[in-house]
Amino acid sequence: MFVEIIDKVRRKEILSKEEIELFLQGYMNGSVQEYQMSAFLMAICCNGLSKEEVFAFVECYLQSGIQLSFSQEEFLVDKHSTGGVGDKTTLILAPIVAALDIPVIKMSGRGLGLTGGTIDKLESIPGYQVERNLEEIKQQVFQIGLVVCSATDEITPLDKKTYALRDVTGTVSSIPLIAISIMSKKIAGGAKKFVFDMKYGEGAFLKEKEEAEHLASLMLEIANQYHCQADFIYSDMSHPLGNAVGNRLEVLEAISVLKGDEKGELYEKCVLLASHMVALSKKCSLKEAEKQVKEVLESRKAFEKFKEWISYQGGKLELLQIEDPKISYVAPFSGTIRKIHAKEIAMVSKELGAGRDSLFDEIDPSSGVYLHVKEGDHVQKGQILMDLYTAKKEIPKIDFCFEID
Amino acid sequence: MFVEIIDKVRRKEILSKEEIELFLQGYMNGSVQEYQMSAFLMAICCNGLSKEEVFAFVECYLQSGIQLSFSQEEFLVDKHSTGGVGDKTTLILAPIVAALDIPVIKMSGRGLGLTGGTIDKLESIPGYQVERNLEEIKQQVFQIGLVVCSATDEITPLDKKTYALRDVTGTVSSIPLIAISIMSKKIAGGAKKFVFDMKYGEGAFLKEKEEAEHLASLMLEIANQYHCQADFIYSDMSHPLGNAVGNRLEVLEAISVLKGDEKGELYEKCVLLASHMVALSKKCSLKEAEKQVKEVLESRKAFEKFKEWISYQGGKLELLQIEDPKISYVAPFSGTIRKIHAKEIAMVSKELGAGRDSLFDEIDPSSGVYLHVKEGDHVQKGQILMDLYTAKKEIPKIDFCFEID
Repeated sequence: MFVEIIDKVRRKEILSKEEIELFLQGYMNGSVQEYQMSAFLMAICCNGLSKEEVFAFVECYLQSGIQLSFSQEEFLVDKHSTGGVGDKTTLILAPIVAALDIPVIKMSGRGLGLTGGTIDKLESIPGYQVERNLEEIKQQVFQIGLVVCSATDEITPLDKKTYALRDVTGTVSSIPLIAISIMSKKIAGGAKKFVFDMKYGEGAFLKEKEEAEHLASLMLEIANQYHCQADFIYSDMSHPLGNAVGNRLEVLEAISVLKGDEKGELYEKCVLLASHMVALSKKCSLKEAEKQVKEVLESRKAFEKFKEWISYQGGKLELLQIEDPKISYVAPFSGTIRKIHAKEIAMVSKELGAGRDSLFDEIDPSSGVYLHVKEGDHVQKGQILMDLYTAKKEIPKIDFCFEID
Repeated sequence: MFVEIIDKVRRKEILSKEEIELFLQGYMNGSVQEYQMSAFLMAICCNGLSKEEVFAFVECYLQSGIQLSFSQEEFLVDKHSTGGVGDKTTLILAPIVAALDIPVIKMSGRGLGLTGGTIDKLESIPGYQVERNLEEIKQQVFQIGLVVCSATDEITPLDKKTYALRDVTGTVSSIPLIAISIMSKKIAGGAKKFVFDMKYGEGAFLKEKEEAEHLASLMLEIANQYHCQADFIYSDMSHPLGNAVGNRLEVLEAISVLKGDEKGELYEKCVLLASHMVALSKKCSLKEAEKQVKEVLESRKAFEKFKEWISYQGGKLELLQIEDPKISYVAPFSGTIRKIHAKEIAMVSKELGAGRDSLFDEIDPSSGVYLHVKEGDHVQKGQILMDLYTAKKEIPKIDFCFEID
């Protein structure tokens, strides 16, 4: 029976809602074996899913766990990024939006492969508690309007189980499966309005803009199915976002943006995303929203909210220090920086201890890289391009991070 | 690393020989998990394999076990059928060919799903021993020129392991995987010349003739790669071959063909296949071969060889009896038999106890059906169409076996 369902996907036939339920519930209760689920997922990767099949999947994912609901749900805005190198926007956006009285409940994950996870970044702050139960989440939102914690096991457990299997069976790269995974988690999280930061390019999971657009259109259809609103912002991720790549280094960079010490690409990006979130929640124009966002940054209200939040979850910012860099990488000759390869930078950072291959790997919160240049800069031979932070003895090869001519 | 290899197949990229070796050896030694292998197999089912990839697979399958070699290998001819309802040709061909002094070593399997296995048929003869080790095989061929036994675990164990997984993950229907599985077993078996009975139609595994031709062309390329000759005969399997479907019933039918008591479609088919085998081995014309085949049938030399063979492997033909049929199915009205549906007949026979769903299921050797009519026959209302043999109390529905008008 389960084999027939797998075979149907292989033959590119459409599954009924009942067949999808039968199979996915079977996987949850253990009557569908892991090797059957992985064949099923691969058939989907190769042959796709119809829109109706995608809806049925999302419903099963939602039904596998609890769905949160909040009294302020009409204002609640959630933001999700499809992942990129050096993406620390959540750390900056959450306090900006909360400072404007929009409640923020963000459940995040750990990083795998080349993309860092928000939870890893927050855990690099000594004392920060990432685990919150449902009661604590509600309490914290009521008191300070902001909580960022790791996704609880009660939310879409089917996604959790499936994702772990996809990760080791080469079945991650499927637009319908990605859309199902993201949207079921978001919808179960209780918000009705979402801003999606769709990243593409070599440093992102999605390599082409067309893929990001295709994913966005499917996510929008799912959102509409659940009477949710969704806004999409696209960004090219061929170079890292900001200067820091590595957990604690990124927290420090987020703080300098919140303090107003940095006004570059990362600042602009955060203002843009936050403005969309505010406009969606407050039903105001983007221009009005942007004005409010810049105000809470300039008045340092966002930074105050950040400190209140971190402290509420046990984090001790006064202990957030970093050793001097182990070594600096300097320009081998004078010229112009044509390209900073995000993927190579991420690999170096991972090698230094900031990333993991499997969810069981330990990471070193203090490791990573800090870039001192951006694309287009003119550099002199011997000038520092990048600082490397690590406790390891061996330094990885970094010849392919920069293109200079 | 293994995930990258799976992902490459998903992206329709060609794997190198080294990647295929790494993955398949990993599967054999347990470092590739079952759920990774099933995803890999499904990606192959969906995206296919190049000819070079197929060759690399065959080589890995061969290397996973032992390869037999025989002193008479230049004469040795093996025959393989892609499986069909009521196919008992091996039981008839083997003694015909052996009676013409062509050594026959045939390693067969058990039946699964709707197609019966030669080993199950032979085991329905009281006392017949299907297990032979390599020494016994050589000894028996030397003494009587004929052995039919179950495939040893030493031959292509990788195929055995993979086949069991394919069976439960919807990854059976892949032309390259089928070709690899059949050809690696055949080549490891030691013969250099093969006759393939390519069955297609509703009672066969392959539904369309084009599929059978596609499979044959790939099998031929593999054969040539190993300096082997292969001959292909196609047959439509929309109705059962012969009158009997069920293990002991089929042995009895084979005996009546060998004794010269039956001269219908089954007899013609066996003469055709045997002639191809003889022509290939003796390098004579098909016409000359056919003459020799008919001679050993008429002189009963083939039947004598059959008795010698069965007795050598412990079978007691004198105990080969069958109870009277439990019930007969009669024509509900007068008319012409337009169609006898092989698949429906096979399902009825399986329900009666002659087939199995999983390799752990027991079968009842005496159960099955015996057809008294063939397509095109005119029948009167109440005339017996089919006898049903079973020890079960419940009789399955048989309304869809015949089309009469």
